[in-house]
Amino acid sequence: MPLVRRVLSHPARLVSLGFLLQMVVGTVLLLLPVSRAEGAPADLLVAAFTTVSATCVTGLITVDTATYWSPFGQVVIMGLIQVGGIGVMTLATLLALTVRGRLGLRTSLAAQADSHSLDLGDVRRVVLRIVGLALTIEAFIAVLLTLRFALGYGMGWGTAVWHGLFHAVSSFNNAGFALYTDNVIGFVGDLWIIGPLCLALILGGLGFPVLRELLSGAPARRWSVHTRLTVWGTSTLFVLGILAFWFFEGAAGGTLAHLPPAQQAVGALAGGVFPRTAGFNAVDYAHVTEETEAITMVLMFIGGGSAGTAGGVKVTTFLLLAAVIWAEVRGEPDVVIGQRRVAAPVQRQALTVALLAVGLVIGSTLVLMMLTDIPSLDLGFEVISAFATVGLSTGITAQLPAAGQVLLMVLMFLGRVGTITVASAIALNTRHRHYRLPEERPIVG
Amino acid sequence: MPLVRRVLSHPARLVSLGFLLQMVVGTVLLLLPVSRAEGAPADLLVAAFTTVSATCVTGLITVDTATYWSPFGQVVIMGLIQVGGIGVMTLATLLALTVRGRLGLRTSLAAQADSHSLDLGDVRRVVLRIVGLALTIEAFIAVLLTLRFALGYGMGWGTAVWHGLFHAVSSFNNAGFALYTDNVIGFVGDLWIIGPLCLALILGGLGFPVLRELLSGAPARRWSVHTRLTVWGTSTLFVLGILAFWFFEGAAGGTLAHLPPAQQAVGALAGGVFPRTAGFNAVDYAHVTEETEAITMVLMFIGGGSAGTAGGVKVTTFLLLAAVIWAEVRGEPDVVIGQRRVAAPVQRQALTVALLAVGLVIGSTLVLMMLTDIPSLDLGFEVISAFATVGLSTGITAQLPAAGQVLLMVLMFLGRVGTITVASAIALNTRHRHYRLPEERPIVG
Ligand SMILES: [K+]
Ligand SMILES: [K+]
Repeated sequence: MPLVRRVLSHPARLVSLGFLLQMVVGTVLLLLPVSRAEGAPADLLVAAFTTVSATCVTGLITVDTATYWSPFGQVVIMGLIQVGGIGVMTLATLLALTVRGRLGLRTSLAAQADSHSLDLGDVRRVVLRIVGLALTIEAFIAVLLTLRFALGYGMGWGTAVWHGLFHAVSSFNNAGFALYTDNVIGFVGDLWIIGPLCLALILGGLGFPVLRELLSGAPARRWSVHTRLTVWGTSTLFVLGILAFWFFEGAAGGTLAHLPPAQQAVGALAGGVFPRTAGFNAVDYAHVTEETEAITMVLMFIGGGSAGTAGGVKVTTFLLLAAVIWAEVRGEPDVVIGQRRVAAPVQRQALTVALLAVGLVIGSTLVLMMLTDIPSLDLGFEVISAFATVGLSTGITAQLPAAGQVLLMVLMFLGRVGTITVASAIALNTRHRHYRLPEERPIVG
Repeated sequence: MPLVRRVLSHPARLVSLGFLLQMVVGTVLLLLPVSRAEGAPADLLVAAFTTVSATCVTGLITVDTATYWSPFGQVVIMGLIQVGGIGVMTLATLLALTVRGRLGLRTSLAAQADSHSLDLGDVRRVVLRIVGLALTIEAFIAVLLTLRFALGYGMGWGTAVWHGLFHAVSSFNNAGFALYTDNVIGFVGDLWIIGPLCLALILGGLGFPVLRELLSGAPARRWSVHTRLTVWGTSTLFVLGILAFWFFEGAAGGTLAHLPPAQQAVGALAGGVFPRTAGFNAVDYAHVTEETEAITMVLMFIGGGSAGTAGGVKVTTFLLLAAVIWAEVRGEPDVVIGQRRVAAPVQRQALTVALLAVGLVIGSTLVLMMLTDIPSLDLGFEVISAFATVGLSTGITAQLPAAGQVLLMVLMFLGRVGTITVASAIALNTRHRHYRLPEERPIVG
């Protein structure tokens, strides 16, 4: 018990170490000749980049997953995705529980009874529930996909099961890896493929705390603020994303224009849902309109739900900041969401996560601009895609120089563990001043 | 007295009305035939755009100031700049004083004695001091420029005085209008022109509250937090901006590469200082590197000091948010700058101003992307330049369709009065809840 508590009290270190270990193991495995298809040359950077991309459930690639890797290599990638995705989901959930206990302490020293630390029993129960839930959902999606691959595309049952399994794992973990050279562009109009993928990535992307609350069957009016923000925020962003994608890529004569209307709708579903943050390519982002590219960047940056397999600054962070602004504009001293006051430290955490992310994205884009001559919009798209562990690309990943690819690896790592651990590490590491300094009010704006 | 107080209690309305009135008068004046050079066609959009740009001290233009307008028209423009610049400086100072009084009320209902409202005497004194200070600085700069124009460029004394006066007013008010077709590109290496311009725009851009404190002769360790943030922040950003400009445009073979080293240094001074937020063009921004363009966008967005002639979200807003993040990362419950605690409502105001600005910039850029086929980086540059009332442009202003130009006008207006009034209007309009709702802590990140 003390060990667990000690380890959990340094979450950034724990998560980082676990990730680094997995990345070393993954890189070594992918460097083995048995991992590569015949004739594919060994390359440390390719192995490392693919490992980081899979571990951080991003899906950016510098080689074609379908042709560069052997079936063994593809199994390794699937394993990295599964361990990385569910691992972070578990740790983030544990951290959120720990932080909630600690935040009580921070907000009010008197309310020490409120501070419930986790014991080993809690940890074991949480891990088992998450793994059980994840495997159940993945199995269900795998069955759906397998049936479609076998019956709709004439695959042999063995191949269909393997493809169903891989894409179920990839979609629930929001990883965006696919076993096809064109990712899932070939299925853009097929609801029986796009639908299960969307279902899996939405469930994974909501995050475990929300899933648990939804599965508990509580009526919507009893939901916690976190679940309400995540569910309504996710739904609204999906609708906006789908409409925007349909307008700019379908109606306006873009990458969906060649499809009949019903399939355009499926394509728009994919285009609106995948950027948050599965990262499957349903269309070729090298050919989308600049408007789609910009809107996709915003959606990617916001990302999905906390403590799940999604990336980005998270829907709750975004909506919390919106609520703070709304309260400020209305002159309300408290930030209120659905009859609940949002704790002040949480507001500050949201601010910190969002602005550090903005700074990181701008700074990294600038570095890539210095390294290459690729148009800046594409570079910004790539940076946000890496940071938000989305994996969409206009196709420039492999063209970047080694330093640029390493930067993307760092961004994926920071995006996957950074937003989660910054918030919780901060919250767990609160000092107390025994005196308060005099107050001052600089002019703003 | 009650009138003044009532008017000041609706600052957004007052400032907006004053601005709208000035814009109508300016547009009518610029539409008069006497305002245009011979042969220049009458155009409502041109007159309105120029009026808004001058009133909001921005400097974006759709016609050449040197050749489209008559001397009378140029005098009208100078008048609009002077009234718009000093007017907002005065109102923002009054609002800041009022807000400080009210903020005390808001933070602690018990400390009502702390709430000092302004009376008419205060208002008169503040207005007189600001106008006096502005005219003194402008006169000094005008003399320097006049001497250089007459002695260095062989202008007649009459022309030299007129040019000296116009550019002194334009620079102190951070307006960026110039009487030359190439703006001030022709003077890029001339320290005797660039120097006075920089001095004037820095003084105007610091804002009156800071100027007053600096002129009072208080030692640096006694400065208010606001002055410290503004002075150190401005200095640091200048140094970074100058170094970056020198690196990307001089050393790396850009728009300054044709100059000898000493003049490159002067050009880098201009390139680093002008974007915040004078907006004189010392080089042709259509030909700068993408890196310079991106860095300039960041500098423009941050802007200058509060309650002055500068635009942007303001240096204090930016640094306050940085301080909040720093406190959060260190686990400090209070945000402390130089032995002073920053009031919590001020933190929330900074957040609101900055994030509304980000949203406005992103949304407006997206609209322009839909309206035109101009590269998105140039459109983003133009939008930030308008919103931060900078006036730098890659030369696309006149190419934008009418709807795009109207959007820029709205952005200039929102940027000039929005950031100032949002913060103060909010602060003056605080409700009080007589009960508090239960607290909750959504997961962030
Ligand atoms: K992904
Ligand atoms: K300006």
